Amino acid sequence: MMTERRVPFVLFGVGGVGSELLKVILASRRLHSSLYGLRFTAVGVADSSGALMSKPSDAGELSDATLEAVIQHKAAGKKLSQFEVASAIEAKTPEGGTPSDFIMSIARECGRHSSCMLIDCSATEATIPALVLADELPSLKVVSANKKPFAADLATFKTLTSVSMRHRVRHESTVVAGVPVIAALSRVVASADPVSSISGSFSGTLGYVMSGLQEGGAFSEVVSKAKELGYTEPDPRDDLGGVDVARKALILARMLGMQLEMSDVQVEPLYPPVFASLSVPEFMERLPELDDDFRQRVSAASAEGKALRYAAKVTVLPDGGGSLVVGLQAVGADTPLGTLKGSDNLVEISTAVYSATPLVLRGAGAGAGGTAAGVLADMVELAFTHDQ
Amino acid sequence: MMTERRVPFVLFGVGGVGSELLKVILASRRLHSSLYGLRFTAVGVADSSGALMSKPSDAGELSDATLEAVIQHKAAGKKLSQFEVASAIEAKTPEGGTPSDFIMSIARECGRHSSCMLIDCSATEATIPALVLADELPSLKVVSANKKPFAADLATFKTLTSVSMRHRVRHESTVVAGVPVIAALSRVVASADPVSSISGSFSGTLGYVMSGLQEGGAFSEVVSKAKELGYTEPDPRDDLGGVDVARKALILARMLGMQLEMSDVQVEPLYPPVFASLSVPEFMERLPELDDDFRQRVSAASAEGKALRYAAKVTVLPDGGGSLVVGLQAVGADTPLGTLKGSDNLVEISTAVYSATPLVLRGAGAGAGGTAAGVLADMVELAFTHDQ
Repeated sequence: MMTERRVPFVLFGVGGVGSELLKVILASRRLHSSLYGLRFTAVGVADSSGALMSKPSDAGELSDATLEAVIQHKAAGKKLSQFEVASAIEAKTPEGGTPSDFIMSIARECGRHSSCMLIDCSATEATIPALVLADELPSLKVVSANKKPFAADLATFKTLTSVSMRHRVRHESTVVAGVPVIAALSRVVASADPVSSISGSFSGTLGYVMSGLQEGGAFSEVVSKAKELGYTEPDPRDDLGGVDVARKALILARMLGMQLEMSDVQVEPLYPPVFASLSVPEFMERLPELDDDFRQRVSAASAEGKALRYAAKVTVLPDGGGSLVVGLQAVGADTPLGTLKGSDNLVEISTAVYSATPLVLRGAGAGAGGTAAGVLADMVELAFTHDQ
Repeated sequence: MMTERRVPFVLFGVGGVGSELLKVILASRRLHSSLYGLRFTAVGVADSSGALMSKPSDAGELSDATLEAVIQHKAAGKKLSQFEVASAIEAKTPEGGTPSDFIMSIARECGRHSSCMLIDCSATEATIPALVLADELPSLKVVSANKKPFAADLATFKTLTSVSMRHRVRHESTVVAGVPVIAALSRVVASADPVSSISGSFSGTLGYVMSGLQEGGAFSEVVSKAKELGYTEPDPRDDLGGVDVARKALILARMLGMQLEMSDVQVEPLYPPVFASLSVPEFMERLPELDDDFRQRVSAASAEGKALRYAAKVTVLPDGGGSLVVGLQAVGADTPLGTLKGSDNLVEISTAVYSATPLVLRGAGAGAGGTAAGVLADMVELAFTHDQ
């Protein structure tokens, strides 16, 4: 039996996905030791209010008991700055600097440990400078469930996936949670198999809505039902607008080397521009005005043996250029995307090898469990990559 | 720009998948340099007749021109022992020893280079001692498209996936070619997400046959058509017997920690025992005797809203035990497996995270292109793992 190797990390965004991740890390100590000979050790955990950092006197690691207490503290809806700190732990608060400065100071502390992982389970662009710091500090690795750094400006994406960073960065859970779409696409790229297109349904909410329309429901009814069930954001336009779908598709397109900014993506929202300025109750009240139009579009697709989907489509041209379009698309009713039902996400990747039929991945694309699982699998992979 | 890092390998099984792999490696030199800063260099290539090994005077690497010539030589149906050898290349033949001794001598030569990869594109158990050698020599890594070493005795599987070997071994193309089923399942295991079952259609040939039955074709007609089109082995019983499907499912079950030997797998062949001893023409002639039975089974499944599939099913019990059954199964007609058509392979993985709906991967599960792509993606991954 090999000695257990310690793999240090700091976590941005404890609570939600971050707490779920800590729970699974604690529950899988024995598994990670026996299968991989490793132990993930928390150098620090942070939310936007503050951070708990281990001190050398605490073996440079927050104890499992502390992590359990942090999980409970956050589950009770409290801020990390309100956590009662034991003597071996150093508390930090962001007072004075910007959120980015605060996160950067934690990243630098991580960088003092060999092969320390920055785990980003937040949903803010404020982590970008810290993640980019890994470009300068080869002792750092990056695992992100936060899609914003990868969907921000192209220059940041290029830094995070440069030849010197690529093997130290993983971001599976930025797209379709733990469903290994990023891993699959990375393998396609590595195998030099040229991609001609990627089509996908990247929103469980919109998948649910389109399934409902397909089954004959009125748009207004299906959206109201989705809202009642908590499938949509409090303002359903945050889902229906398609921007979140566009972010995910942008990340995949960039992985193919496409030089795209978010402003290059054509996004079709599922409501007319005049609905954008309404209050949420007004918006919900006026939804029935859209029912006829959706009914006609579904019928027109059916008449052609097709199913209407809210899909992202990345098209790659032989010259390396291409386009990224997000919106309503009629797809063959017996294709993988056409047979999709309910809230599952699905991706079709067409390549030279997968030309007759695409490579398809399908599964739940949201939820703290799946997202944390994707992060943890990334952490195990990075635990075995070179430091530099 | 970083310096290009040389990643040495030896290839067992040049010709077929092995030749396809060499072609892609040669064609992707620029891509691998720009994205990953690496260059795969062939220390040697072998088939069952002999090997070409680089000499130190050849920079320890077979030149691209030599590899091109080897690809053409094999494409012409010739043995490697007939290859005209240039002075910088050392030719080896297996005369005297066993095939395993011969392969082992090549592996040892590979082991003299730091982080040298043994690439197994053969279809023989004779490579097993060489692959297992990597357990003793941490300078070796292993990538296998050959499923036999992983489906042989459990002890060999355990050695190849031990805590000291796991990060130096990849075998994506042993199951469903390049469709990243092994990568996906490895991630599920790493994320400590307990698997409850795996169901899959792992044979394009049997998928084609079952689709044909579903569409109303007679068993004898569908099998004859598949044979004519070259979809089956020359003796269709090699496909219809289910042993190849069982091997793939066994590898997945073992990845979950199930302690199974091949003899523990219940395999249902698609023909009765008395058909086993017939000649191929006799077998084909008597196929219509089975038509009625298949027609009835398809009808019975349809009557229950189900589709008949030739599937492998791994069931995991809460105590860690479980079973592996391969044969005809009636599955819900609107499940991913039920909607599958044609020769695509498909895997459904049900876990705690993927409980409402399974994680699904689908795509072409055979062909030299896909198989070589899976091997090359494995090679790129291993190029960035620790040496030891």
